[in-house]
Formats: sequence, structure tokens, C-alpha cells
Amino acid sequence: MPAWSSAARPTRTSRAVTPDASGPFRVGLLGQGTVGAAFGKLLEERADAVEQEVGRRPEVSGVLTRSRGDFRDILERSDLIVELIGGTDPALEYVLEAMRSGRHVVTANKQLLSQHGEELYATAYEHQVQLRFEAAVAGVVPAIRVMGETLAAAHIERVHGIVNGTTNFILTAMEETGASYEEALAEAQRLGYAEADPTEDVSGTDAAAKMAILARLAFGAPVRLDQVPHEGIEHLTAEDIEYAKDLGLSLKLIGTAERIGAGLAVHVHPAFLYGGHPLASVRGSFNAVTIESPAITEITLSGPGAGGSQTASAVLGDVVSAMIPPPTLPPPAIELPLVTDVESAFYLYLEVADRPGVLAQVAEVLGLQGVSIKSVVQKGLGEDARLVMVVHPVLGSKFRAAVDLISRLDFLRSTPRVIRVIEEVFE
Amino acid sequence: MPAWSSAARPTRTSRAVTPDASGPFRVGLLGQGTVGAAFGKLLEERADAVEQEVGRRPEVSGVLTRSRGDFRDILERSDLIVELIGGTDPALEYVLEAMRSGRHVVTANKQLLSQHGEELYATAYEHQVQLRFEAAVAGVVPAIRVMGETLAAAHIERVHGIVNGTTNFILTAMEETGASYEEALAEAQRLGYAEADPTEDVSGTDAAAKMAILARLAFGAPVRLDQVPHEGIEHLTAEDIEYAKDLGLSLKLIGTAERIGAGLAVHVHPAFLYGGHPLASVRGSFNAVTIESPAITEITLSGPGAGGSQTASAVLGDVVSAMIPPPTLPPPAIELPLVTDVESAFYLYLEVADRPGVLAQVAEVLGLQGVSIKSVVQKGLGEDARLVMVVHPVLGSKFRAAVDLISRLDFLRSTPRVIRVIEEVFE
Repeated sequence: MPAWSSAARPTRTSRAVTPDASGPFRVGLLGQGTVGAAFGKLLEERADAVEQEVGRRPEVSGVLTRSRGDFRDILERSDLIVELIGGTDPALEYVLEAMRSGRHVVTANKQLLSQHGEELYATAYEHQVQLRFEAAVAGVVPAIRVMGETLAAAHIERVHGIVNGTTNFILTAMEETGASYEEALAEAQRLGYAEADPTEDVSGTDAAAKMAILARLAFGAPVRLDQVPHEGIEHLTAEDIEYAKDLGLSLKLIGTAERIGAGLAVHVHPAFLYGGHPLASVRGSFNAVTIESPAITEITLSGPGAGGSQTASAVLGDVVSAMIPPPTLPPPAIELPLVTDVESAFYLYLEVADRPGVLAQVAEVLGLQGVSIKSVVQKGLGEDARLVMVVHPVLGSKFRAAVDLISRLDFLRSTPRVIRVIEEVFE
Repeated sequence: MPAWSSAARPTRTSRAVTPDASGPFRVGLLGQGTVGAAFGKLLEERADAVEQEVGRRPEVSGVLTRSRGDFRDILERSDLIVELIGGTDPALEYVLEAMRSGRHVVTANKQLLSQHGEELYATAYEHQVQLRFEAAVAGVVPAIRVMGETLAAAHIERVHGIVNGTTNFILTAMEETGASYEEALAEAQRLGYAEADPTEDVSGTDAAAKMAILARLAFGAPVRLDQVPHEGIEHLTAEDIEYAKDLGLSLKLIGTAERIGAGLAVHVHPAFLYGGHPLASVRGSFNAVTIESPAITEITLSGPGAGGSQTASAVLGDVVSAMIPPPTLPPPAIELPLVTDVESAFYLYLEVADRPGVLAQVAEVLGLQGVSIKSVVQKGLGEDARLVMVVHPVLGSKFRAAVDLISRLDFLRSTPRVIRVIEEVFE
């Protein structure tokens, strides 16, 4: 066990390099893309207010871009490094070196944290500097602060998140206009909510990275991006959404991190939500996180997903917090086994030949696997018939086994479609 | 200007009395009603987790109830005082004395803060102790922490809140079941969501106290409860709610604190929200706060209103934060003039005789006062006709003048009914 992960935490005295604690607080900025430029502007606008608030004035001590600036030189002249380069190379090296030389770090880099989190947290501990990353997870939604501070003493049971604005924009457009996935994606690209290559967003990878970071903070166990099973939204159809409306359901890309017995499950899937779920009303490019804990029931936080000025605002909030010692760091990691076969309610969409006894046969197969039907809608006639149903929570492995058997029944006209369903917290 | 309100803040070194910083963190508990008992239990359950998190173990050093315990004796043996007595006497005296003797204070007492906030904040400054009160405002919803920390450097433009669970429960029941105000209140009382004497909740006084506290934190200007105009929900009818549904509106008791030019407006009113507003989907006894700022657009926080275990959890979150020095205190107060005549959209409900030209006459009176109609629905026939409309934002004084003129028109069959309407942030 490395020294930093012992339960007894080092004394919370900042060793950060602050040669003159009454002079300006010097912020070295790495990267000057959209967010970097917005951050520089916002820092200048708000410097007076920050000085009023915490007693020191923040100012940019140097900017590193692809074409100008020297990292070591900027580091030497900074109390804190803001890393907005993105990716892991050279961001990882820069962030580690900054912390090793006693500088605080604020970053919006989810790749870095979801792939190298433990090394980064350990380095922050060892050198007793602050590592803050609110902007890496859900835009301006203060999920990290609320989990780390408000709920520091709470026993968190589950976190549900809409943590990718691009996919929520696309799904909202499909739901509100009846558009196909391709049409909604094109609209999102036209309006700047999706990139020319949208793969990382629509495949669920971006959301999985964010859920890995949230799970580490909520449960204290190390979770890497490559340990988070994820499914995207590319295969969803306007029909899924239309039929589900009859059942009172709304479709979202949901990241889940939850305790399962003595273990932990973290995954990202498209999921239907009942109308009363606090995430059901989160529309467009907004992000939201619901945190469930026995003492509090639940807290939901929502706001715009990452845009330049929103992300810059979250970064500035972290800088201001870092200006006030001592460091607040996630506690050392504990070990929790990762569970992948978890219980869920499911939506099942079947195209069937409309013969007598079809529903009875489907229900029998489900029943033999221990799957119980909650509600069912039959649509269409003859060769165009469809069975759309929601089943009560059941282990994913059991439900997949049942669907596998159903898919072999001779009256099935296409592959069954399956989407998870999240129940309301209060019904 | 008192010394503490100078812009230069005293050095943030805690003078709190901590004779043995490695021993247990001693919490003196004043009051042992529902919340006090729940807090004592939660503290015991979570003491191990808190010790793991912040390096010291919290423990209750003494409990003061009506019939036992001595305040001075408990104070002597405590590092922090949790005040859950409620009201201002003797709570004010105890809290001031605790801070003067260097103890941190955590309280859930909205009366105290909304009536004596400036004296309390000044005392906390002078003695450099922490005064925390997350539980005083919106149950477990971390509005105070997010405004004070995440948005410490943001320029907040407006705060909207559903900060009273009783009234939201009643309005939700009226909306969902068609019940009258009296029926819904009786149901809320039966289920424990309303007290036997519900006056403080249904009159808007409770919400006004909370908005006074939020306004102080959002804008830095002192606001007392007696400066917050408020209107309750007692006069609302099932008909208001029913007709407004046709216009896509949902009825809530909304507290607003907003910048108006160089001033500040704080008030509590029943208001209709368009379906897309983030507060429109807040149901039952939940609380929620939306904070608007140019850089972030908006953040919405929601969760259960005050129940015993929820409030206890918010109090414990504050205790844990107070265990980590240095104090975070609201900055010294600034002066902002309080504005009471503000712009709003309005809903207007008129019972009229169904004669030709009625709508034209109403529209003419409105037009002469500069009031412009956004949408209108005409219902019923003959002597039972109603005009229900929403007008675009206009100064409250102008709209009231127009309604005053309309109420004198001879075809009016009853007093016009007026309710504010809050527009969606994005339309």
C-alpha cells in the first residue's frame, strides 16, 4: 500500500509555493482554445470581485500555447496551474510536474482524470497541493463540490447522471420533433452542439469517463474509464421514443454509479425514465446529476453542459477555492469489487406476426426466466403488429437470456430491441 | 462603518478554541426536538466516516433541552455549537455568546438569520469563527454552499426559489387532483407536510425569511425579513390552476431575488411557470433553487424540503465543513437599494358577461397602460363567460393600474384575479 493511501491523512497544511501571500495570486494558463480564452477574459473581469471575496487578486502569470510560451518558465512564476490543453500528452506530465513543485492544479481534463486519476490524487496528497476539476464532469453543475463537501459525511448509495450535453440535445430533439437519430445529429452539428466527428459523445465514451470520475468521488474506489461498460445512442430510433411515450417514458443517456451489495457498478446506457424522475425533465444540452443517500433521499443538480463560458466559470470557481487553503482532496482510495451484472427494469420492443397466443408465449418465456411484466401495449395489426412492454427490475443476465430465447420464436419479424428503464425514486 | 465591514478582510486564521486539535471535535447540541434527535443519531452513525474524511472524530459533548443541561457548561466543553432551538429567544443570545467565546456555530434557524443576520455575521467576523446555516434555507438543497463557493466569483443576476415544501405539496396536489386549497391543505396536514397552524408556511412568511437569507448571500446586501413583500397561497383556487393548464402553465410559490438596475428586488408570490422552466417540474414537498448568472446561464438545485433526517444531514455537512479551518464567511455587506416595483408577466382571470366587444374593451384599457397581451383564452358562454390571459412583462404598478380600471367596467362579474408568470429562461 503506498504511503498516501493510509487511512491517517497527512496534516492538512498546504506546502504550496506562495512566496508572497499578500501579493497577487499567480495563475499559469496551459492551453488557449475556446475555454482557455474564455477563462482569461473572465478572470480579468472578475479579479476585483475575487480580491474582495478572498483577499488576494488573481492574475494570469503566463500562457502556454502550441506556438508560444515555455512550461517551466510559466511554472516558476505561478502559484497555480490551470490545465486546459486536453488529452493526456503532454497534459499528464505538466500536471504532475506542477504538483511535484508545490503548485495547485485546476483542470477540465476528463481523459486525464479517468485514465490516470490515482496517480494524480496520490501526487496531490504527497505534495499537499489542491487538485480541482469541477469543469471535467458536468459543465457548471457543481456535482464534485456537492459530493465532496455537502455530502462529505453522507453514505451515497447511487449517482445517476446526464453528463453529456450532445446526446441529451439529440434525444430531446428526437422526442420533441419526431426526428430520426441522423436528422437530430445533423441539427446538433449545425448548431454547434455536436462535433464534426461526434463519436466520443454519441458512443457514450465521454459519459463513461465522467462517470468513472464521479464514482471515485462518490464511493472512494478507483474506477478507470476502461472499466466502465458503455453503450451509445446511435442505434436508437424515433419509434422507440414514440411508443415509449404511451408508457409515460422519456429517453436519456444515463450514467449510473451505485453500490451493489459490497461492490460497485458503474455503467452508461440509454435508459427510459418515468416522468416523475428528477432527470426526466432535463432537456436540450443541459447536464444533471442526481445523488441518492438514505439520510437525504436525493439531491438533483442541473445546468448547462460544457460551453466555453460555462466551463471557464467552473474553472474560475475552482481557482477561487484553491486560493483558500488548506487543500481539500478526495480521501485515499478503498477497494470495492466492480459488479457488471446488475438489476434493472427493461423496455422490450418486439415486431411480431399478429397471431393468437403470441403474447402468451412471450409472457411464458419471460416467466420461466423470472422476468415479470409491468405494462404492455400492443400496436398495429397482422404482419405489422408490435408488442411494447416494460418489465419489473431483474438481473441483466436473466433478461438477456429471456430475450435470446424470445428472438428464436418463429413469429418474431425482427431482432428484439431492449432499453433500460429507471424507476421513479418515489412512486 | 463598523470595523468588520471594511473591504480588507481580517487574516483568515481561526481563533476557534481547539485545546487539543488531535482529540475529538466536541459538538454542543442546543435543542433536541425532531431535528436535534435525528442529528445526534446521524452524528453517531457517521463519526467513523467523518474521522476518515477530515482526520478528527466528532462527538456530542453535551445536550441542552428545556428541562436539562446548562448552556455555559456545554459551551465550555465544546469546539462548535449546533443551535436547533429555533426562534430568536434564547437562540440569539446563545449563538452570539458561543461565537464571542471562539466557538463555531451551525444553525438551521431562519428566523434568527433573517432578522439578526448582520449582527451574527459581524460577530463571526470579529471572532473569526465559522457560522454555517445550510439547513436554514432549502432542506438538503446546497444552495448556500453553491452560491458561496462554486459561484463565489460569479456575478449573480437572479435567484428563483421554491423554498417552502408545505406550499409546494399543496399546489402540486391541487394541480394533480383538482382538489381545492382547503382539501389539499387538509391532506398535507394529515400526511405531516403541514402543521396544525399552517399560517407561517401558507402565508409566504417562511419563504420570505429564506429569500432574505439567500439574497444576502447572492448579492452581499443586507435584507431583513420585514423588507421582503410576500403573498401566500390561501386565496388560490382550483380554477386558476385548471385554466392555466390550457396556457401551458404550472403554479408555484416562488421567491425571487434579483438585480434591478443598481438596486435589488426580493419578494415572494404565487407564480405561474411555463413548462420548460427548471422549477416547473419540482413536485410535492421538494425544494429547489435556480441561480442565474451571465457566465453560467443557470444552475438548478433540487431535493427534499426540510424533514428531520434531511435537515440533520445538512447540519452534519456544515459541521464537517466547520471542522476544516479556516472560516468561510459571507463577505461584509454592501448597500443596494431595495426595489419593490418590478417587471413581470402576469396572468389575469376575468369573469365577464359575454357581450360583443368585451375583449376589445379589456384590450384597450390594457393597451392604454402599456400592457401587451401574450395569449388569451375565452371560456364559457353568456353570464358564465371568462377571459383568461397572460400579458407580456410590464411594471407591476402599471399592471395594477390597468386592472384597477378593468375592475370598474360594467360587464365584470367579480374581482379580477392576478397571478405573476415567470417566463422560461430559454424560449
